[in-house]
Amino acid sequence: MAIHYPNGKSYLKKIGSSNTKRTKNIVYGKRGMSLEDEINESNKYYLESGIAVIHKKPTPVQIVDVFYPKRSAAVIKKAYFKQASTTDYNGVYQGKYIDFEAKETKNKTSFPLSNFHEHQINHMKACCKQDGICFTIVKFVADAQIFLMPSETLFYYWDRQNNGRKSIPKEVIAQDGFEIAYELQPRIPYLKYVDRLINK
Amino acid sequence: MAIHYPNGKSYLKKIGSSNTKRTKNIVYGKRGMSLEDEINESNKYYLESGIAVIHKKPTPVQIVDVFYPKRSAAVIKKAYFKQASTTDYNGVYQGKYIDFEAKETKNKTSFPLSNFHEHQINHMKACCKQDGICFTIVKFVADAQIFLMPSETLFYYWDRQNNGRKSIPKEVIAQDGFEIAYELQPRIPYLKYVDRLINK
Repeated sequence: MAIHYPNGKSYLKKIGSSNTKRTKNIVYGKRGMSLEDEINESNKYYLESGIAVIHKKPTPVQIVDVFYPKRSAAVIKKAYFKQASTTDYNGVYQGKYIDFEAKETKNKTSFPLSNFHEHQINHMKACCKQDGICFTIVKFVADAQIFLMPSETLFYYWDRQNNGRKSIPKEVIAQDGFEIAYELQPRIPYLKYVDRLINK
Repeated sequence: MAIHYPNGKSYLKKIGSSNTKRTKNIVYGKRGMSLEDEINESNKYYLESGIAVIHKKPTPVQIVDVFYPKRSAAVIKKAYFKQASTTDYNGVYQGKYIDFEAKETKNKTSFPLSNFHEHQINHMKACCKQDGICFTIVKFVADAQIFLMPSETLFYYWDRQNNGRKSIPKEVIAQDGFEIAYELQPRIPYLKYVDRLINK
């Protein structure tokens, strides 16, 4: 381990110079895809390759009125979006319970905590207590940079937001977590970084 | 272990005389509740007691048309029910990934395989390969009897249904799995039987 002499601040690695080696595996195309699409595509690859079973949960909807036409499928005529009580993604990977949220931000230097609801944080805390692996995949859209941020970092900033700071600095995310380099298959190979998170 | 002398058939315990001791903890009321309500209530208890984090997934819906009235919440004006690609319930319990389906049947002596879709079986098989704990909670409504049926039993009958038999006999479910006795809190204490399933 490298020793960093103290200057009163925690050591911040320069973003972009993270552990991730930029190899020829990196794909620069398709940057217009949403993070959700990229993760769904990656999960499909993981599923088909027998590597993991991780799905996005359906959007929770409060159904108010359903119409049943004869001889055809039921049509929902009125419904409302409900607030999710959990994170968006969960599943199983080599016996381990995986639970995460995926968030994009247009901010360049920090990730706003307003991206989360209290009950999502509570859900992740409860999962961590059950020895689940929890994290957030954060995409800084402007630079097309993706990070796996451990839940501890999120909890730390979340629990202290009343002190004033309402966002997590990008430097901290890069330091505490891992920058995920795009690859061909899967596009976002986040389980590789989950391995590192587990062995940390 | 008791020894059962072979008669060419596998040993069938008499249903009702399962391992579950009928104690004064048993509740006979509220039998009109749906199995889903009972499990949701039990999951709420498990969550609030810090025992496990298990949720029902939202019903998957294909949203076609959304109306955004001014100053109020978006209203879904047209949507369709989609077929679920996974089971209904999953979560984490003491580091273990839990995945199950809950099904009621009005049949008295067997559980029809038509309660399942191919992709739900495939999903459970994939989860088992990742060392997840998979099972079905089956309720025979007529007798208000609930069983935890291991996924192996389901797979066995599912994979052989083209041979003719399209249902799983209740005796087999009782023998391979566990009858779950209603309790006060939680109403369906299925995790107790998951412990037994793990230690089997």
